[in-house]
Amino acid sequence: MNEVILYDYWRSSASYRVRIALCLLGIPYRTEPIDLVAGMHKSPEFRERNPQGLVPALQIDGVLLTQSLAIIEYLDETHKGADFLPNDAVGRQHVRALSHVIAMDIHPVCNLGVVGNVMKMAEAHGDDPTEIRLAWMRKYIAEGLNAFERLLDPANSGGFCHGDRPSMADICLIPQVFNAKRWGVDIGGLNAVNRIAERCLAMDAFARAHPDLCPR
Amino acid sequence: MNEVILYDYWRSSASYRVRIALCLLGIPYRTEPIDLVAGMHKSPEFRERNPQGLVPALQIDGVLLTQSLAIIEYLDETHKGADFLPNDAVGRQHVRALSHVIAMDIHPVCNLGVVGNVMKMAEAHGDDPTEIRLAWMRKYIAEGLNAFERLLDPANSGGFCHGDRPSMADICLIPQVFNAKRWGVDIGGLNAVNRIAERCLAMDAFARAHPDLCPR
Repeated sequence: MNEVILYDYWRSSASYRVRIALCLLGIPYRTEPIDLVAGMHKSPEFRERNPQGLVPALQIDGVLLTQSLAIIEYLDETHKGADFLPNDAVGRQHVRALSHVIAMDIHPVCNLGVVGNVMKMAEAHGDDPTEIRLAWMRKYIAEGLNAFERLLDPANSGGFCHGDRPSMADICLIPQVFNAKRWGVDIGGLNAVNRIAERCLAMDAFARAHPDLCPR
Repeated sequence: MNEVILYDYWRSSASYRVRIALCLLGIPYRTEPIDLVAGMHKSPEFRERNPQGLVPALQIDGVLLTQSLAIIEYLDETHKGADFLPNDAVGRQHVRALSHVIAMDIHPVCNLGVVGNVMKMAEAHGDDPTEIRLAWMRKYIAEGLNAFERLLDPANSGGFCHGDRPSMADICLIPQVFNAKRWGVDIGGLNAVNRIAERCLAMDAFARAHPDLCPR
């Protein structure tokens, strides 16, 4: 089998998702760190690989894959027993919808480039850009995770977002909870989210994917 | 069969995607217009249905589904011959990645709420909010569609984003091209995007889903 390479940035929550999926499947991989703050994603070498210049990108099975959720669906389809999505169509729809609440409605709005643009606007007017950033992050993360909590099925007692094993929704949730803590978002009232996060973080695969353990 | 109801807003490109999918499948549906500009999505009645307060939401098969791409995947799985995703795992990954370039990296950043927030910031400083909005839209739509063009497989001569029939990627592309035109983004140089758009727009299903034909 050819080497699996993850183009990764430790603080990217999209990368964090793919790390969790790889760890849950026990797929060995080598990390190629792409330092977003240093602008490595804009280098011609990396753009040659991924024209979008985004992480994560995953070299696997002879192809380079981009977009975290599309990568996770690929890993699910190509690894029997991954079960990142449930067996029934309505269940799969629910897991994908939960995943998209985070991956579409929170994450892109809080992404480094977008927030950097907002900070530049603030700075041009003499506002403190770090204050503006903090308010921006807190607003979108809080709104999004509140909606996520309400979309969880109250009848689900499986201990995870959907059923009794980690799905793509849990894979999306954990990096977002990490980000919420990083930005000081008060999510103490989100009982289901906190219960699920505690359960996931106790699992070895989630622990090994943690940003603090990433090669930089 | 129970009535299919689409909670829709004519100008929402996420709604437009689901309209295209329903039209491609020939599924009859009733539109329940949710006027985002009038704030109807924030009403308690609608929040009761969809806690996120977003369109589209689709009532079908006895359940209410949210999140446009998760709805489209559901329709694909439950309707034989939909073929919104190709048969091979690498092909499916490519179609999903293309779809996510639009649905994650362009659309959420240009969404009414986020742009409204940016406009408020501009206004507070005496800037012209409509100018700021225009620059914001043009920047993110242009960058995103340029990346989309480069991610299309140059060896694909099928006439659509992937292969020789409309996939989820085409379903995402057409509303984004509509938006690009609305905001005066110059996409004249994106040859593949323009060729695909022309081909899709000549199809009856894409034509019937157009915003101008929506009940309001």
